[in-house]
Amino acid sequence: MLEPDEYIYGIRAVIEAVEAGKEIDKVLIRKDLQGGELSAELFDCLHRHRIIIQRVPAEKIDRITRRNHQGVLAILSAVTYHSLAELVPTLYEEGMVPFLVVLDGVTDVRNFGAIARTCECAGADAVVIPARGGVGVNADAVKTSAGALHYLPVCRERSILNAVKFLKDNGYKVVAATEKSELNYTKVDYTGPVAIVMGSEDIGINPDILRHCDELVAIPQLGEIGSLNVSVASGVMIYEVVRQRLSAGFSC
Amino acid sequence: MLEPDEYIYGIRAVIEAVEAGKEIDKVLIRKDLQGGELSAELFDCLHRHRIIIQRVPAEKIDRITRRNHQGVLAILSAVTYHSLAELVPTLYEEGMVPFLVVLDGVTDVRNFGAIARTCECAGADAVVIPARGGVGVNADAVKTSAGALHYLPVCRERSILNAVKFLKDNGYKVVAATEKSELNYTKVDYTGPVAIVMGSEDIGINPDILRHCDELVAIPQLGEIGSLNVSVASGVMIYEVVRQRLSAGFSC
Repeated sequence: MLEPDEYIYGIRAVIEAVEAGKEIDKVLIRKDLQGGELSAELFDCLHRHRIIIQRVPAEKIDRITRRNHQGVLAILSAVTYHSLAELVPTLYEEGMVPFLVVLDGVTDVRNFGAIARTCECAGADAVVIPARGGVGVNADAVKTSAGALHYLPVCRERSILNAVKFLKDNGYKVVAATEKSELNYTKVDYTGPVAIVMGSEDIGINPDILRHCDELVAIPQLGEIGSLNVSVASGVMIYEVVRQRLSAGFSC
Repeated sequence: MLEPDEYIYGIRAVIEAVEAGKEIDKVLIRKDLQGGELSAELFDCLHRHRIIIQRVPAEKIDRITRRNHQGVLAILSAVTYHSLAELVPTLYEEGMVPFLVVLDGVTDVRNFGAIARTCECAGADAVVIPARGGVGVNADAVKTSAGALHYLPVCRERSILNAVKFLKDNGYKVVAATEKSELNYTKVDYTGPVAIVMGSEDIGINPDILRHCDELVAIPQLGEIGSLNVSVASGVMIYEVVRQRLSAGFSC
Protein backbone atom coordinates (compact mmCIF):
# COMPACT_ATOMS: atom_id res chain seq x y z
CA MET A 1 0.00 0.00 0.00
CA LEU A 2 2.82 2.41 0.86
CA GLU A 3 4.94 3.56 -2.07
CA PRO A 4 8.75 3.36 -1.66
CA ASP A 5 9.03 7.14 -1.41
CA GLU A 6 6.67 7.13 1.57
CA TYR A 7 8.98 5.33 3.99
CA ILE A 8 12.58 4.89 5.08
CA TYR A 9 13.93 1.61 6.51
CA GLY A 10 16.99 0.52 8.44
CA ILE A 11 18.22 1.82 11.79
CA ARG A 12 20.99 4.12 10.53
CA ALA A 13 18.85 5.51 7.68
CA VAL A 14 15.97 6.31 10.05
CA ILE A 15 18.29 8.07 12.53
CA GLU A 16 19.72 10.15 9.68
CA ALA A 17 16.27 11.07 8.36
CA VAL A 18 15.12 12.19 11.81
CA GLU A 19 18.27 14.22 12.45
CA ALA A 20 17.91 15.83 9.02
CA GLY A 21 14.47 17.08 10.04
CA LYS A 22 12.34 14.87 7.73
CA GLU A 23 8.64 14.95 8.65
CA ILE A 24 7.83 11.55 10.07
CA ASP A 25 4.37 10.21 10.83
CA LYS A 26 5.63 7.42 13.05
CA VAL A 27 8.37 4.82 13.31
CA LEU A 28 7.46 1.12 13.31
CA ILE A 29 9.87 -0.96 15.40
CA ARG A 30 9.67 -4.74 15.67
CA LYS A 31 8.67 -5.81 19.16
CA ASP A 32 11.73 -7.97 19.72
CA LEU A 33 14.35 -5.54 18.37
CA GLN A 34 17.67 -6.47 19.93
CA GLY A 35 19.39 -3.96 22.18
CA GLY A 36 22.87 -2.66 21.33
CA GLU A 37 24.63 0.61 20.71
CA LEU A 38 22.81 1.43 17.49
CA SER A 39 19.36 0.65 18.95
CA ALA A 40 20.16 2.86 21.93
CA GLU A 41 21.15 5.65 19.59
CA LEU A 42 17.88 5.19 17.64
CA PHE A 43 15.67 5.38 20.74
CA ASP A 44 17.58 8.39 22.06
CA CYS A 45 17.14 10.16 18.72
CA LEU A 46 13.41 9.35 18.48
CA HIS A 47 12.77 10.50 22.04
CA ARG A 48 14.68 13.75 21.60
CA HIS A 49 12.66 14.55 18.49
CA ARG A 50 9.41 13.36 20.10
CA ILE A 51 8.71 10.95 17.23
CA ILE A 52 5.81 8.52 17.67
CA ILE A 53 7.01 4.92 18.04
CA GLN A 54 4.82 1.91 17.37
CA ARG A 55 6.07 -1.54 18.40
CA VAL A 56 4.80 -4.13 15.91
CA PRO A 57 5.34 -7.77 14.94
CA ALA A 58 8.16 -8.07 12.37
CA GLU A 59 5.61 -9.31 9.81
CA LYS A 60 3.92 -5.93 9.74
CA ILE A 61 7.14 -4.32 8.51
CA ASP A 62 7.75 -7.24 6.14
CA ARG A 63 4.41 -6.49 4.54
CA ILE A 64 5.63 -2.98 3.66
CA THR A 65 9.08 -3.99 2.41
CA ARG A 66 11.05 -7.20 2.09
CA ARG A 67 14.32 -5.24 1.97
CA ASN A 68 16.75 -5.38 4.91
CA HIS A 69 14.82 -3.13 7.30
CA GLN A 70 16.47 -4.41 10.49
CA GLY A 71 13.09 -4.18 12.21
CA VAL A 72 12.86 -0.41 11.85
CA LEU A 73 10.79 1.56 9.33
CA ALA A 74 9.84 5.24 9.40
CA ILE A 75 6.62 6.30 7.66
CA LEU A 76 7.11 9.74 6.17
CA SER A 77 4.43 12.36 6.38
CA ALA A 78 3.04 13.78 3.15
CA VAL A 79 2.79 17.25 4.69
CA THR A 80 4.80 19.53 6.95
CA TYR A 81 3.17 19.72 10.35
CA HIS A 82 2.66 22.98 12.17
CA SER A 83 2.64 23.52 15.88
CA LEU A 84 -0.48 24.99 17.45
CA ALA A 85 1.71 26.84 19.96
CA GLU A 86 3.38 28.67 17.07
CA LEU A 87 0.36 29.00 14.79
CA VAL A 88 -2.00 30.61 17.31
CA PRO A 89 0.08 33.76 17.99
CA THR A 90 0.90 34.04 14.26
CA LEU A 91 -2.78 34.15 13.34
CA TYR A 92 -3.42 36.93 15.85
CA GLU A 93 -0.38 38.87 14.60
CA GLU A 94 -1.77 38.67 11.06
CA GLY A 95 -4.95 40.34 12.32
CA MET A 96 -7.11 37.30 11.53
CA VAL A 97 -10.24 36.29 13.39
CA PRO A 98 -9.00 32.74 13.57
CA PHE A 99 -11.06 29.71 12.62
CA LEU A 100 -9.71 26.24 13.36
CA VAL A 101 -11.17 22.78 12.91
CA VAL A 102 -10.14 20.16 15.48
CA LEU A 103 -10.62 16.46 14.71
CA ASP A 104 -10.77 14.15 17.70
CA GLY A 105 -9.85 10.83 16.14
CA VAL A 106 -11.27 10.80 12.61
CA THR A 107 -9.72 7.59 11.26
CA ASP A 108 -10.99 7.26 7.69
CA VAL A 109 -8.54 8.76 5.21
CA ARG A 110 -11.30 9.69 2.75
CA ASN A 111 -13.25 11.49 5.45
CA PHE A 112 -10.12 13.31 6.57
CA GLY A 113 -9.28 14.28 2.99
CA ALA A 114 -12.80 15.61 2.38
CA ILE A 115 -12.73 17.59 5.65
CA ALA A 116 -9.33 19.11 4.78
CA ARG A 117 -10.75 20.04 1.37
CA THR A 118 -13.75 21.72 2.99
CA CYS A 119 -11.52 23.59 5.47
CA GLU A 120 -9.40 24.93 2.63
CA CYS A 121 -12.43 25.95 0.53
CA ALA A 122 -14.02 27.67 3.52
CA GLY A 123 -10.88 29.61 4.42
CA ALA A 124 -10.31 27.87 7.75
CA ASP A 125 -6.85 28.62 9.13
CA ALA A 126 -5.79 25.10 10.06
CA VAL A 127 -6.95 21.61 10.91
CA VAL A 128 -5.80 20.04 14.18
CA ILE A 129 -5.39 16.26 14.48
CA PRO A 130 -4.09 13.98 17.24
CA ALA A 131 -0.61 12.47 16.90
CA ARG A 132 -1.99 9.08 17.94
CA GLY A 133 -5.29 7.38 17.23
CA GLY A 134 -6.21 9.54 14.28
CA VAL A 135 -5.62 9.42 10.60
CA GLY A 136 -2.19 9.27 8.98
CA VAL A 137 -1.59 12.17 6.63
CA ASN A 138 -0.34 10.09 3.73
CA ALA A 139 -0.45 10.36 -0.04
CA ASP A 140 -4.04 9.03 -0.08
CA ALA A 141 -5.12 11.82 2.27
CA VAL A 142 -3.51 14.43 0.04
CA LYS A 143 -5.22 12.92 -3.02
CA THR A 144 -8.70 12.78 -1.46
CA SER A 145 -8.22 16.34 -0.20
CA ALA A 146 -7.93 17.40 -3.89
CA GLY A 147 -4.62 19.01 -2.99
CA ALA A 148 -6.02 21.04 -0.09
CA LEU A 149 -3.35 19.58 2.19
CA HIS A 150 -0.73 21.44 0.16
CA TYR A 151 -2.28 24.72 1.34
CA LEU A 152 -3.99 24.04 4.65
CA PRO A 153 -1.77 23.98 7.75
CA VAL A 154 -2.10 20.72 9.71
CA CYS A 155 -1.30 20.80 13.43
CA ARG A 156 -0.56 17.39 14.90
CA GLU A 157 -0.97 17.55 18.66
CA ARG A 158 -0.02 14.99 21.31
CA SER A 159 -3.22 15.74 23.25
CA ILE A 160 -6.41 17.12 21.77
CA LEU A 161 -7.58 17.86 25.33
CA ASN A 162 -4.54 20.08 25.90
CA ALA A 163 -5.04 21.66 22.49
CA VAL A 164 -8.62 22.57 23.46
CA LYS A 165 -7.46 24.04 26.78
CA PHE A 166 -4.72 25.99 24.99
CA LEU A 167 -7.21 27.42 22.48
CA LYS A 168 -9.59 28.48 25.26
CA ASP A 169 -6.69 30.15 27.12
CA ASN A 170 -6.00 32.05 23.93
CA GLY A 171 -9.50 33.46 23.60
CA TYR A 172 -11.06 30.92 21.26
CA LYS A 173 -14.65 29.81 21.62
CA VAL A 174 -14.44 26.02 21.36
CA VAL A 175 -17.61 24.50 19.93
CA ALA A 176 -18.13 20.74 19.82
CA ALA A 177 -20.56 19.11 17.40
CA THR A 178 -22.20 16.22 19.21
CA GLU A 179 -25.45 14.32 18.99
CA LYS A 180 -25.59 14.60 22.79
CA SER A 181 -26.56 18.27 22.59
CA GLU A 182 -29.98 19.79 22.01
CA LEU A 183 -28.66 23.21 21.02
CA ASN A 184 -29.08 23.84 17.30
CA TYR A 185 -25.66 24.56 15.78
CA THR A 186 -26.98 27.73 14.09
CA LYS A 187 -27.80 29.32 17.48
CA VAL A 188 -24.17 29.87 18.45
CA ASP A 189 -22.17 32.93 17.36
CA TYR A 190 -19.09 32.00 15.34
CA THR A 191 -17.93 35.51 14.46
CA GLY A 192 -15.14 35.61 17.08
CA PRO A 193 -12.05 33.39 17.26
CA VAL A 194 -13.50 29.92 17.03
CA ALA A 195 -12.51 26.27 16.97
CA ILE A 196 -14.98 23.62 15.84
CA VAL A 197 -14.42 20.15 17.31
CA MET A 198 -15.61 17.10 15.36
CA GLY A 199 -15.48 13.54 16.71
CA SER A 200 -14.55 10.17 15.30
CA GLU A 201 -16.86 8.19 13.03
CA ASP A 202 -17.81 5.62 15.66
CA ILE A 203 -17.59 7.05 19.16
CA GLY A 204 -17.73 10.81 18.60
CA ILE A 205 -15.82 13.22 20.83
CA ASN A 206 -14.09 12.00 23.98
CA PRO A 207 -16.22 13.00 27.05
CA ASP A 208 -13.19 14.59 28.75
CA ILE A 209 -12.83 16.91 25.79
CA LEU A 210 -16.58 17.63 25.63
CA ARG A 211 -16.44 18.81 29.26
CA HIS A 212 -13.89 21.47 28.34
CA CYS A 213 -15.70 22.86 25.29
CA ASP A 214 -17.54 26.18 25.57
CA GLU A 215 -20.59 25.04 23.63
CA LEU A 216 -22.00 21.68 22.61
CA VAL A 217 -24.17 21.91 19.52
CA ALA A 218 -26.09 19.48 17.34
CA ILE A 219 -27.05 19.39 13.70
CA PRO A 220 -30.82 18.67 13.60
CA GLN A 221 -31.64 15.09 12.68
CA LEU A 222 -35.10 14.94 11.18
CA GLY A 223 -35.15 11.41 9.80
CA GLU A 224 -34.95 7.85 11.04
CA ILE A 225 -31.23 7.07 10.88
CA GLY A 226 -30.10 10.10 12.83
CA SER A 227 -26.43 10.40 12.01
CA LEU A 228 -24.56 12.20 9.27
CA ASN A 229 -21.27 11.17 7.72
CA VAL A 230 -18.53 13.04 9.61
CA SER A 231 -17.21 14.82 6.52
CA VAL A 232 -20.72 16.02 5.66
CA ALA A 233 -21.38 17.11 9.27
CA SER A 234 -18.06 18.98 9.24
CA GLY A 235 -19.07 20.71 6.02
CA VAL A 236 -22.39 21.80 7.51
CA MET A 237 -20.67 23.19 10.65
CA ILE A 238 -17.84 24.86 8.73
CA TYR A 239 -20.15 26.61 6.28
CA GLU A 240 -22.34 27.88 9.12
CA VAL A 241 -19.23 29.70 10.35
CA VAL A 242 -18.72 31.11 6.84
CA ARG A 243 -22.39 32.11 6.55
CA GLN A 244 -22.33 34.01 9.83
CA ARG A 245 -19.03 35.71 9.06
CA LEU A 246 -20.09 36.81 5.57
CA SER A 247 -23.42 38.07 7.01
CA ALA A 248 -21.45 40.04 9.60
CA GLY A 249 -19.50 41.75 6.82
CA PHE A 250 -16.24 39.79 7.07
CA SER A 251 -14.42 39.49 3.79
CA CYS A 252 -13.28 36.06 5.13
CA MET B 1 -17.82 -7.35 -6.85
CA LEU B 2 -21.52 -8.23 -7.23
CA GLU B 3 -22.88 -10.82 -4.82
CA PRO B 4 -24.94 -13.69 -6.29
CA ASP B 5 -28.15 -12.27 -4.80
CA GLU B 6 -27.60 -9.00 -6.67
CA TYR B 7 -28.07 -10.37 -10.18
CA ILE B 8 -30.02 -12.86 -12.29
CA TYR B 9 -28.56 -14.53 -15.39
CA GLY B 10 -29.90 -16.45 -18.37
CA ILE B 11 -32.46 -15.29 -20.92
CA ARG B 12 -35.50 -17.13 -19.53
CA ALA B 13 -34.69 -16.26 -15.90
CA VAL B 14 -34.32 -12.57 -16.74
CA ILE B 15 -37.62 -12.50 -18.63
CA GLU B 16 -39.35 -14.14 -15.67
CA ALA B 17 -37.79 -11.69 -13.18
CA VAL B 18 -38.93 -8.71 -15.24
CA GLU B 19 -42.44 -10.07 -15.71
CA ALA B 20 -42.63 -10.77 -11.96
CA GLY B 21 -41.95 -7.08 -11.28
CA LYS B 22 -38.46 -7.40 -9.79
CA GLU B 23 -36.68 -4.03 -9.51
CA ILE B 24 -33.91 -4.08 -12.09
CA ASP B 25 -31.12 -1.55 -12.41
CA LYS B 26 -30.19 -2.60 -15.92
CA VAL B 27 -29.73 -5.67 -18.10
CA LEU B 28 -26.32 -6.43 -19.57
CA ILE B 29 -26.54 -8.16 -22.96
CA ARG B 30 -23.52 -9.37 -24.89
CA LYS B 31 -22.97 -7.36 -28.05
CA ASP B 32 -23.12 -10.34 -30.37
CA LEU B 33 -26.16 -12.07 -28.82
CA GLN B 34 -27.68 -14.30 -31.50
CA GLY B 35 -31.21 -13.56 -32.67
CA GLY B 36 -33.95 -16.16 -32.31
CA GLU B 37 -37.35 -16.53 -30.74
CA LEU B 38 -36.18 -16.33 -27.15
CA SER B 39 -34.00 -13.25 -27.79
CA ALA B 40 -36.94 -11.57 -29.49
CA GLU B 41 -39.11 -12.35 -26.47
CA LEU B 42 -36.42 -10.90 -24.19
CA PHE B 43 -36.13 -7.63 -26.09
CA ASP B 44 -39.89 -7.29 -26.32
CA CYS B 45 -40.20 -7.83 -22.57
CA LEU B 46 -37.42 -5.34 -21.73
CA HIS B 47 -38.89 -2.68 -24.00
CA ARG B 48 -42.40 -3.11 -22.65
CA HIS B 49 -41.12 -2.66 -19.09
CA ARG B 50 -38.79 0.18 -20.11
CA ILE B 51 -35.77 -1.61 -18.64
CA ILE B 52 -32.34 -0.10 -19.34
CA ILE B 53 -30.24 -2.29 -21.66
CA GLN B 54 -26.48 -2.10 -21.88
CA ARG B 55 -24.70 -3.96 -24.70
CA VAL B 56 -21.33 -5.21 -23.45
CA PRO B 57 -18.51 -7.55 -24.50
CA ALA B 58 -19.19 -11.09 -23.24
CA GLU B 59 -16.12 -10.80 -20.99
CA LYS B 60 -17.83 -8.17 -18.89
CA ILE B 61 -20.58 -10.64 -17.98
CA ASP B 62 -18.00 -13.41 -17.51
CA ARG B 63 -16.33 -11.25 -14.88
CA ILE B 64 -19.55 -11.23 -12.85
CA THR B 65 -20.36 -14.93 -13.20
CA ARG B 66 -18.84 -17.92 -14.96
CA ARG B 67 -22.17 -19.77 -14.86
CA ASN B 68 -24.16 -20.29 -18.04
CA HIS B 69 -25.50 -16.78 -18.49
CA GLN B 70 -26.24 -17.04 -22.23
CA GLY B 71 -24.97 -13.48 -22.63
CA VAL B 72 -27.74 -11.96 -20.52
CA LEU B 73 -27.49 -10.74 -16.92
CA ALA B 74 -29.88 -8.50 -15.01
CA ILE B 75 -28.48 -6.38 -12.17
CA LEU B 76 -31.09 -6.10 -9.46
CA SER B 77 -31.73 -2.85 -7.70
CA ALA B 78 -31.24 -2.74 -3.95
CA VAL B 79 -34.20 -0.38 -3.54
CA THR B 80 -37.71 0.06 -4.88
CA TYR B 81 -37.83 3.02 -7.19
CA HIS B 82 -40.56 5.62 -7.01
CA SER B 83 -41.95 7.64 -9.87
CA LEU B 84 -41.72 11.42 -9.66
CA ALA B 85 -45.07 11.67 -11.46
CA GLU B 86 -46.70 9.73 -8.60
CA LEU B 87 -44.63 11.13 -5.74
CA VAL B 88 -45.22 14.83 -6.45
CA PRO B 89 -49.03 14.81 -6.06
CA THR B 90 -48.72 12.51 -3.03
CA LEU B 91 -46.45 14.98 -1.23
CA TYR B 92 -48.93 17.80 -1.84
CA GLU B 93 -51.83 15.64 -0.66
CA GLU B 94 -49.96 14.95 2.56
CA GLY B 95 -49.76 18.71 3.15
CA MET B 96 -45.97 18.76 2.94
CA VAL B 97 -43.89 21.67 1.74
CA PRO B 98 -41.88 19.35 -0.45
CA PHE B 99 -38.10 19.26 -0.56
CA LEU B 100 -36.37 17.16 -3.19
CA VAL B 101 -32.72 16.67 -4.07
CA VAL B 102 -31.95 16.03 -7.74
CA LEU B 103 -28.58 14.53 -8.74
CA ASP B 104 -27.51 15.13 -12.32
CA GLY B 105 -25.04 12.32 -12.86
CA VAL B 106 -23.27 11.72 -9.54
CA THR B 107 -21.30 8.56 -10.35
CA ASP B 108 -19.37 7.69 -7.18
CA VAL B 109 -21.28 5.21 -5.03
CA ARG B 110 -19.78 6.55 -1.78
CA ASN B 111 -20.78 10.10 -2.67
CA PHE B 112 -24.29 8.95 -3.58
CA GLY B 113 -24.58 6.98 -0.33
CA ALA B 114 -23.44 9.98 1.73
CA ILE B 115 -25.89 12.28 -0.07
CA ALA B 116 -28.77 9.86 0.49
CA ARG B 117 -27.79 9.68 4.17
CA THR B 118 -27.81 13.48 4.41
CA CYS B 119 -31.19 13.70 2.63
CA GLU B 120 -32.69 11.25 5.09
CA CYS B 121 -31.21 13.02 8.14
CA ALA B 122 -32.42 16.38 6.87
CA GLY B 123 -35.94 15.15 6.23
CA ALA B 124 -35.81 15.59 2.45
CA ASP B 125 -38.72 13.87 0.74
CA ALA B 126 -36.82 12.06 -2.01
CA VAL B 127 -33.69 11.96 -4.09
CA VAL B 128 -33.98 11.98 -7.87
CA ILE B 129 -31.35 10.28 -10.03
CA PRO B 130 -31.05 9.64 -13.77
CA ALA B 131 -31.76 6.18 -15.13
CA ARG B 132 -28.60 6.38 -17.25
CA GLY B 133 -25.20 7.91 -16.61
CA GLY B 134 -25.59 8.07 -12.87
CA VAL B 135 -24.88 5.80 -9.99
CA GLY B 136 -26.28 2.29 -9.60
CA VAL B 137 -28.28 1.87 -6.43
CA ASN B 138 -26.60 -1.33 -5.31
CA ALA B 139 -25.74 -2.93 -1.99
CA ASP B 140 -22.66 -0.69 -1.65
CA ALA B 141 -24.83 2.40 -2.00
CA VAL B 142 -27.19 1.14 0.70
CA LYS B 143 -24.24 0.41 2.98
CA THR B 144 -22.57 3.80 2.52
CA SER B 145 -25.94 5.46 3.04
CA ALA B 146 -25.94 3.92 6.55
CA GLY B 147 -29.32 2.41 5.71
CA ALA B 148 -30.87 5.72 4.61
CA LEU B 149 -31.87 4.15 1.30
CA HIS B 150 -34.27 1.89 3.20
CA TYR B 151 -36.25 5.00 4.19
CA LEU B 152 -35.61 7.65 1.55
CA PRO B 153 -37.65 7.36 -1.67
CA VAL B 154 -35.45 7.24 -4.78
CA CYS B 155 -36.93 8.42 -8.07
CA ARG B 156 -35.09 7.15 -11.13
CA GLU B 157 -35.97 9.33 -14.09
CA ARG B 158 -35.22 8.83 -17.78
CA SER B 159 -34.52 12.55 -18.21
CA ILE B 160 -33.38 14.89 -15.47
CA LEU B 161 -34.22 17.80 -17.77
CA ASN B 162 -37.83 16.63 -18.01
CA ALA B 163 -37.88 16.03 -14.26
CA VAL B 164 -36.80 19.65 -13.68
CA LYS B 165 -39.49 20.93 -16.07
CA PHE B 166 -42.08 18.74 -14.36
CA LEU B 167 -41.11 20.05 -10.92
CA LYS B 168 -41.33 23.67 -12.12
CA ASP B 169 -44.76 23.00 -13.64
CA ASN B 170 -45.78 21.70 -10.24
CA GLY B 171 -44.80 24.83 -8.36
CA TYR B 172 -41.33 23.89 -7.21
CA LYS B 173 -38.52 26.40 -7.09
CA VAL B 174 -35.63 24.57 -8.74
CA VAL B 175 -32.25 25.73 -7.42
CA ALA B 176 -28.99 24.55 -9.00
CA ALA B 177 -25.71 24.61 -7.11
CA THR B 178 -23.01 25.57 -9.57
CA GLU B 179 -19.62 27.21 -9.43
CA LYS B 180 -20.75 29.26 -12.44
CA SER B 181 -23.01 31.42 -10.26
CA GLU B 182 -22.08 34.42 -8.16
CA LEU B 183 -25.23 34.31 -6.04
CA ASN B 184 -24.49 33.12 -2.50
CA TYR B 185 -26.61 30.03 -1.79
CA THR B 186 -27.89 31.53 1.48
CA LYS B 187 -29.55 34.44 -0.38
CA VAL B 188 -32.30 32.30 -1.88
CA ASP B 189 -35.52 31.48 -0.05
CA TYR B 190 -36.03 27.74 0.39
CA THR B 191 -39.19 27.84 2.50
CA GLY B 192 -41.53 26.96 -0.38
CA PRO B 193 -41.63 23.76 -2.41
CA VAL B 194 -38.04 23.35 -3.50
CA ALA B 195 -35.75 21.07 -5.46
CA ILE B 196 -31.98 21.37 -5.12
CA VAL B 197 -29.99 20.21 -8.15
CA MET B 198 -26.42 18.98 -7.67
CA GLY B 199 -24.09 18.07 -10.53
CA SER B 200 -21.62 15.30 -11.22
CA GLU B 201 -18.16 15.20 -9.64
CA ASP B 202 -16.32 16.15 -12.82
CA ILE B 203 -18.49 18.25 -15.11
CA GLY B 204 -21.18 19.61 -12.83
CA ILE B 205 -24.74 20.16 -14.04
CA ASN B 206 -25.61 19.84 -17.73
CA PRO B 207 -25.97 23.36 -19.25
CA ASP B 208 -29.39 22.47 -20.72
CA ILE B 209 -30.62 21.73 -17.23
CA LEU B 210 -29.00 24.86 -15.75
CA ARG B 211 -30.96 26.96 -18.26
CA HIS B 212 -34.24 25.62 -16.90
CA CYS B 213 -33.49 26.14 -13.20
CA ASP B 214 -35.09 29.05 -11.36
CA GLU B 215 -31.95 30.04 -9.48
CA LEU B 216 -28.26 29.27 -9.86
CA VAL B 217 -26.39 29.57 -6.60
CA ALA B 218 -22.82 29.03 -5.43
CA ILE B 219 -21.23 28.00 -2.17
CA PRO B 220 -18.50 30.58 -1.43
CA GLN B 221 -15.00 29.31 -2.16
CA LEU B 222 -12.51 31.23 -0.07
CA GLY B 223 -9.37 29.16 -0.59
CA GLU B 224 -7.06 28.14 -3.38
CA ILE B 225 -8.52 24.86 -4.60
CA GLY B 226 -12.03 26.16 -5.10
CA SER B 227 -14.15 23.04 -5.22
CA LEU B 228 -15.90 21.00 -2.56
CA ASN B 229 -16.57 17.29 -2.62
CA VAL B 230 -20.10 16.82 -4.04
CA SER B 231 -21.40 15.05 -0.94
CA VAL B 232 -20.11 17.85 1.30
CA ALA B 233 -21.52 20.53 -1.04
CA SER B 234 -24.87 18.70 -1.00
CA GLY B 235 -24.79 18.66 2.81
CA VAL B 236 -24.15 22.40 2.94
CA MET B 237 -27.03 23.12 0.53
CA ILE B 238 -29.44 20.69 2.18
CA TYR B 239 -28.85 22.03 5.68
CA GLU B 240 -29.32 25.61 4.50
CA VAL B 241 -32.84 24.52 3.52
CA VAL B 242 -33.30 23.02 6.99
CA ARG B 243 -31.91 26.14 8.68
CA GLN B 244 -34.28 28.44 6.83
CA ARG B 245 -37.29 26.20 7.41
CA LEU B 246 -36.62 25.79 11.15
CA SER B 247 -36.08 29.58 11.44
CA ALA B 248 -39.42 30.09 9.68
CA GLY B 249 -41.11 27.92 12.30
CA PHE B 250 -41.53 24.72 10.30
CA SER B 251 -41.47 21.61 12.41
CA CYS B 252 -39.81 19.97 9.34
